[in-house]
Amino acid sequence: MEKERETLQAWKQRVAQELDRVLAFWREHSHDQEHGGFFTCLGRDGRVYDDLKYVWLQGRQVWMYCHLYRKFERFHHSELLDAAKAGGEFLLRYARVAPPGKKCAFVLTRDGRPVKVQRTIFSECFYTMAMNELWRVTGEVRYQSEAVEMMDQIVRWVREDPSELGRPQLAGAPAVEPMAVPMMLLNLVEQLGEADAELASRYSELGDWCALRILQHVQRDGQAVLENVSEDGKELSGCLGRHQNPGHALEAGWFLLRHSIRKGDPKLRAHIIDKFLLLPFRSGWDPEHGGLFYFQDADDLCPTQFRDPEYGEWFGYLNREGKVALTIKGGPFKGCFHVPRCLAMCEEMLGALLNRPAPAPGSGARSPPTVPAR
Amino acid sequence: MEKERETLQAWKQRVAQELDRVLAFWREHSHDQEHGGFFTCLGRDGRVYDDLKYVWLQGRQVWMYCHLYRKFERFHHSELLDAAKAGGEFLLRYARVAPPGKKCAFVLTRDGRPVKVQRTIFSECFYTMAMNELWRVTGEVRYQSEAVEMMDQIVRWVREDPSELGRPQLAGAPAVEPMAVPMMLLNLVEQLGEADAELASRYSELGDWCALRILQHVQRDGQAVLENVSEDGKELSGCLGRHQNPGHALEAGWFLLRHSIRKGDPKLRAHIIDKFLLLPFRSGWDPEHGGLFYFQDADDLCPTQFRDPEYGEWFGYLNREGKVALTIKGGPFKGCFHVPRCLAMCEEMLGALLNRPAPAPGSGARSPPTVPAR
Repeated sequence: MEKERETLQAWKQRVAQELDRVLAFWREHSHDQEHGGFFTCLGRDGRVYDDLKYVWLQGRQVWMYCHLYRKFERFHHSELLDAAKAGGEFLLRYARVAPPGKKCAFVLTRDGRPVKVQRTIFSECFYTMAMNELWRVTGEVRYQSEAVEMMDQIVRWVREDPSELGRPQLAGAPAVEPMAVPMMLLNLVEQLGEADAELASRYSELGDWCALRILQHVQRDGQAVLENVSEDGKELSGCLGRHQNPGHALEAGWFLLRHSIRKGDPKLRAHIIDKFLLLPFRSGWDPEHGGLFYFQDADDLCPTQFRDPEYGEWFGYLNREGKVALTIKGGPFKGCFHVPRCLAMCEEMLGALLNRPAPAPGSGARSPPTVPAR
Repeated sequence: MEKERETLQAWKQRVAQELDRVLAFWREHSHDQEHGGFFTCLGRDGRVYDDLKYVWLQGRQVWMYCHLYRKFERFHHSELLDAAKAGGEFLLRYARVAPPGKKCAFVLTRDGRPVKVQRTIFSECFYTMAMNELWRVTGEVRYQSEAVEMMDQIVRWVREDPSELGRPQLAGAPAVEPMAVPMMLLNLVEQLGEADAELASRYSELGDWCALRILQHVQRDGQAVLENVSEDGKELSGCLGRHQNPGHALEAGWFLLRHSIRKGDPKLRAHIIDKFLLLPFRSGWDPEHGGLFYFQDADDLCPTQFRDPEYGEWFGYLNREGKVALTIKGGPFKGCFHVPRCLAMCEEMLGALLNRPAPAPGSGARSPPTVPAR
């Protein structure tokens, strides 16, 4: 027991140190003091190699800063909060392409003019996450109104009428259900429902709907999680249908696991552990070089991440042999989000493990699941 | 002299053999006997891993087959022509998204229903190339009418009004001039003008316009060819502005070189050799592992190509160390085009070198440029 505690303690310390170093990188290099918001296209040493502002990453960084401010004593300082608020104001002012319409841009110029619009819901989802966390740390109701209004719009796009998203109707385009959509929405259901009985109840049916949709992606007699399935939950033909992303399956498994715990459904929980956690780890692992494949089809990139001891933060893109393929620390899809989110969760889970009461003899493996604090 | 002849002869033989093997691969694996057109998503051994039909590659393969049929005695057989015609009919019937409108899809289902539409001109350009070559080998006027009508529509989109292409007008989107557009059009000017005085004259001003536009991509005091510049020929900020594609610069150099030879402009010709051939070879070459970088920024992929002795054709995607990164022989962007087009041109140039009269003593380096036969 004491040995286990020591191991956990050592890991907690190591994870905390990594998280500090990752945050230090973003705090030092990413803040745009002039326009608010964050530079996210950063080279290995933090140099800004493009000043475009990707809306996903703006929303994620606001969320990350608020979340750390709210959950970790050592991040509870005004510098982080001020940067998050400046990012939030930047989003409020510029993210929407044609206000009062809710559609958000995918990427903005440094001073907030729209450059590209994606015909999906994800900019709007990260906008919602950012606004909800801003409300949680500031108590300002306008942030929460923004979050809830955007959430309701997203749900209408997904479940009622997607025409505002602007995707053309083409005769040969398959009616595809990407796993990312219910997965993202389930994440938002949890985000908005945290310690908020009214919203938790309001989005409860949506959460169940998301879970069912995600579970449809378990295909081939339970032997594969596929990224895209047909509207009636069947495998699609071609590359689109065979596409796998083991890291995505694991992330979906994480959201589903927490959903099953909220629902108190141990059978669902066991299914999720089997299909969304163990299966992708087995089938997505590179037997030759180790690491998870980023995409399962025919791609050599591998998503395991190594810290860069010289300049801080981690590299995001390795080749299959594990060598750094891209030296960038941030780009259109990697920002102040996945690495610190993961480190923060690890630190909290290790803390929770260290703080739990010693189990009664013989009952250890069957103790009720603890929900790790977010 | 005799030694040089022997070397050229050996190379010609080797290139011819490669071309035969590459064509054998496509003839064996890519023909869709049921619907016409070509499968292009082929694995290493020729297995169809997706039956989607990318319109660029349909047009390119029709062009390639017709071109080989027309220019090479050993490819002048009905099997190749029939496959090209079946591809041409597939394009005529299905490529356009909403006939009689000219906009073509980017990708179709196997039976011709549109899956995706790109907001660019390239599907239409490869459609034009295919139709013009089909006319050249069959003499059927309907193919040439299709080619010329589509060409005129493309020119209107590029020079007068792009609104039909469907790109949204966004305040922050830079007014960018991608080199691909004038480069592609210059290629079409040459294609349509070959041995056709009327069309050569009709598109002569367009050819000059294209050449001027391409030349604007020489930036940084003549030290770099940039893929994207501003509308007034200046470097754009950020990644978009710094993006380089050495292989593209070389291909543009090839089209420009032939343009300068047609114009009889030796000064232009020297400039092009310097900026579009020597410069990209110097700056785009990987000093560590050899090979040209596919993209110049921060990408490890390298575009040199190796033949696959086991199954024929060449691999298209290597990592920086020169190892095969993707084993596919065809995909959304690699089909029966770049490798055989290059091999065919090499074989013809080697033939032309072998057939040229011996130069008068002392005049070799200054002999007038010969235009390699297409």
